[in-house]
Amino acid sequence: MAKSRFEYVKQFELEDPLLPHCWIVIRLDGKGFTRFSELHNFKKPNDEQALRLMNRCAVEVLEAFPDIRIAFGESDEYSFVFSKTCKIYGRRSSKLVSLVTSCFSGNYVRWWPEHFPSQPLLCTPIFDGRAVCYPTDHILRHYLAWRQADTHINNQYNTCFWALVHSGKSRTEAQDHLKGTQTAYKNELLFSEFGIKYGLLPVMFRKGSVVTRSRRQKTVKHAEDGTAVQREGGEVTVTHEDIIDDAFWETRPDILM
Amino acid sequence: MAKSRFEYVKQFELEDPLLPHCWIVIRLDGKGFTRFSELHNFKKPNDEQALRLMNRCAVEVLEAFPDIRIAFGESDEYSFVFSKTCKIYGRRSSKLVSLVTSCFSGNYVRWWPEHFPSQPLLCTPIFDGRAVCYPTDHILRHYLAWRQADTHINNQYNTCFWALVHSGKSRTEAQDHLKGTQTAYKNELLFSEFGIKYGLLPVMFRKGSVVTRSRRQKTVKHAEDGTAVQREGGEVTVTHEDIIDDAFWETRPDILM
Amino acid sequence: MAKSRFEYVKQFELEDPLLPHCWIVIRLDGKGFTRFSELHNFKKPNDEQALRLMNRCAVEVLEAFPDIRIAFGESDEYSFVFSKTCKIYGRRSSKLVSLVTSCFSGNYVRWWPEHFPSQPLLCTPIFDGRAVCYPTDHILRHYLAWRQADTHINNQYNTCFWALVHSGKSRTEAQDHLKGTQTAYKNELLFSEFGIKYGLLPVMFRKGSVVTRSRRQKTVKHAEDGTAVQREGGEVTVTHEDIIDDAFWETRPDILM
Amino acid sequence: MAKSRFEYVKQFELEDPLLPHCWIVIRLDGKGFTRFSELHNFKKPNDEQALRLMNRCAVEVLEAFPDIRIAFGESDEYSFVFSKTCKIYGRRSSKLVSLVTSCFSGNYVRWWPEHFPSQPLLCTPIFDGRAVCYPTDHILRHYLAWRQADTHINNQYNTCFWALVHSGKSRTEAQDHLKGTQTAYKNELLFSEFGIKYGLLPVMFRKGSVVTRSRRQKTVKHAEDGTAVQREGGEVTVTHEDIIDDAFWETRPDILM
Repeated sequence: MAKSRFEYVKQFELEDPLLPHCWIVIRLDGKGFTRFSELHNFKKPNDEQALRLMNRCAVEVLEAFPDIRIAFGESDEYSFVFSKTCKIYGRRSSKLVSLVTSCFSGNYVRWWPEHFPSQPLLCTPIFDGRAVCYPTDHILRHYLAWRQADTHINNQYNTCFWALVHSGKSRTEAQDHLKGTQTAYKNELLFSEFGIKYGLLPVMFRKGSVVTRSRRQKTVKHAEDGTAVQREGGEVTVTHEDIIDDAFWETRPDILM
Repeated sequence: MAKSRFEYVKQFELEDPLLPHCWIVIRLDGKGFTRFSELHNFKKPNDEQALRLMNRCAVEVLEAFPDIRIAFGESDEYSFVFSKTCKIYGRRSSKLVSLVTSCFSGNYVRWWPEHFPSQPLLCTPIFDGRAVCYPTDHILRHYLAWRQADTHINNQYNTCFWALVHSGKSRTEAQDHLKGTQTAYKNELLFSEFGIKYGLLPVMFRKGSVVTRSRRQKTVKHAEDGTAVQREGGEVTVTHEDIIDDAFWETRPDILM
Repeated sequence: MAKSRFEYVKQFELEDPLLPHCWIVIRLDGKGFTRFSELHNFKKPNDEQALRLMNRCAVEVLEAFPDIRIAFGESDEYSFVFSKTCKIYGRRSSKLVSLVTSCFSGNYVRWWPEHFPSQPLLCTPIFDGRAVCYPTDHILRHYLAWRQADTHINNQYNTCFWALVHSGKSRTEAQDHLKGTQTAYKNELLFSEFGIKYGLLPVMFRKGSVVTRSRRQKTVKHAEDGTAVQREGGEVTVTHEDIIDDAFWETRPDILM
Repeated sequence: MAKSRFEYVKQFELEDPLLPHCWIVIRLDGKGFTRFSELHNFKKPNDEQALRLMNRCAVEVLEAFPDIRIAFGESDEYSFVFSKTCKIYGRRSSKLVSLVTSCFSGNYVRWWPEHFPSQPLLCTPIFDGRAVCYPTDHILRHYLAWRQADTHINNQYNTCFWALVHSGKSRTEAQDHLKGTQTAYKNELLFSEFGIKYGLLPVMFRKGSVVTRSRRQKTVKHAEDGTAVQREGGEVTVTHEDIIDDAFWETRPDILM
């Protein structure tokens, strides 16, 4: 097709490929979700429906991008792990970050009414995204362990914090009460003051959500051109397993393969 | 709050700041929109409602990011120009790309029913995004001119192509017919064969859409923390002006200021 | 020629092009030159021969790289400014940084005996290099002004410092004496205590060194392939002009052209 | 010390850290060495003194940068492998590339007279440098194997080429003769036509040069600040071992540790 004399401006687009043979993690975080969750009356410390909506979006992302091996989500964040050998979009960072963020964001709005039938969406949720490379399987596992450990730390703190607030303390008082306390103290506080056995809280709150594909063959739509391709890995499922210990990885050697 | 021993994985997140004092263009493109537009019965060569939905999303993006000075859209793409001196999010590329793409994508789904009341959304639209730096006002204007010239070139071609197809030609025949033809020929073809005066087609189809803020003061919500801030630039509006010639820029010196 | 099965490792070499249409500054700094200068008995605060050797190396760099428009040096550092439109080596950052650093370093050793006939070179001098992009002529001039202002600030301080030390003070006493003092005080100190009129010190010490090409045509060797090419700009010369004020730039409009 | 109003230009210096936990290879290549070697009458296909000078420079680089684990050189190129966990200079790419290139270049000139006592240096040798990250030990070994395989391929070809040229063929005839020939043919050609047993050529020509540290403790000067520090790894030595097979790596597990 015809070209204009302005065409030269294309040369300012610099490539941003990610290092080959590294695991690519695309992590999304909700922007201003403290305010978003208040505006939409999310339950505190955890809103089960909001978490299920996040998981639904993550499943859609895995359906759209067959190169994703595993995803992990908690609160308003989600990490998607692209295969270390994948060559999708030339491994261009902004391409991967934007597509995953776009897919997640669109699905969040699309499936909102199904998860919040009586709560209209009052503003548009926004997520930021970033790409991080991890050079070895070992360090990738540490990344995922970091997020799952963080889930526990945050959830335990938030469970205490909101129990104190719901019991009548101000937010500042609750904060001061918890400042510098250890895990054991918090568990004891929950049990002795509020009758909450931390270990009996829903596993999704304590462990976050793990999205993987079953190991059966399945025909999936390929993200890049929409044609049907035969891929390893089948049904996308959400669990709340421990991914810090070796056990999970020993039963699922295909994920890091 | 407590930290886990996995914390070290954070150091793999490398910064990606864009060069200071350059105009930052974030350009979004619909992914697989040929198929998306067929699936949702978009009119060819231009679907006015689909374009208005794109414009609506662009307006939302400008409302959310006060540092955007001007945006230009055509077909399934949109370019957003951040002020050359803005320091938002440390000018980190992936942050800006992902936030703008997320905001646009979520709004596309959110406002779909208003623009397509009788056409349900059948799949989630996805956009990719990229960041490009332009070092001077002059080159930035060339970038915008490039996109608007492209709008004209594409629209003229597509108008001919779909007129031929609607008149009974196959897509391959229409393509062959137009191969290598010049502007004058295409205009003549449209008029003599189909009675279409190109210059009388809707200006939005021919010139694309230009989104700017009026120059009045207005209180807008700041994107980063949701607090209300007093900013220059008021009501966000969509026009279809020529932004290639000097005239536009002479009446709006504030945009490049 | 034959290829080995290991060839795939080439794909790990990522491109690092610098933004088009920006001025490229390659700045070199001596590594550990405090020690290097003591080891080789450089005069304090300024060693004229050492500065002339630096200038000689800079001239060689300009002879080798016709795309360099101007260079500025002081103490153990030198900045080389490549034309904003130059396309040499695809504007790859590491290519430019390494070639300029290599050329400078090799020449430093090569021309050492000519500048220090009675002082053998006792260790190999090392320079580090970096590339910085400046988007406009205005900001590039500020960069050069920054370096020349820095030359003055450092030289004035060092002249005072070494005058105090040579007069019998310890280094710590000299430092304490100068801490927080202003320009006027330092000038007064030099004159009243040591009879030094700052403005009469050699201009090379006060203003640094400016390397440019005369505007006459000249045949120079091109860096990339060694063939002789006709280039604008002729004899490379070293001056010590003021490059902060407009005057210099008004008489040399070709530099930023 | 005082600051000028131009100080803001520092913010244009963007960081360029290399991914943590990856092996960093800095590879240098001679620029225009075909011409440089002719100008200085290097013997063809291999000049032993020129190679020994390259090795001398590599040894100096390893002495200056204790974080380098191994280096490999052939012809006018040298690769230096920094430890995957090293944090030197924040792993900044341009810093590492420029320092290694500078150190090598300066030493090349410095030690020239020792290796070429009767051949004056007629122009300044220049090297370019680049940094490449390799995420695993396995791929790093493939990188080094690639260079050593390349040494063999080049040397065999060049030995044939120069034997033909020295026997009276023109360069073009020699090239045409060798075009598309296999390893076995070239070995046969060397033996039957020129009486050269390829396997008996000096091992340095066939295998290149491998620079490592002995495993004994030794006090070395640290590159960054010149202070003496106790480091693992002792005397730097040059060998011409095979580094493609496992044997080398099994006897030297410390290199990749």
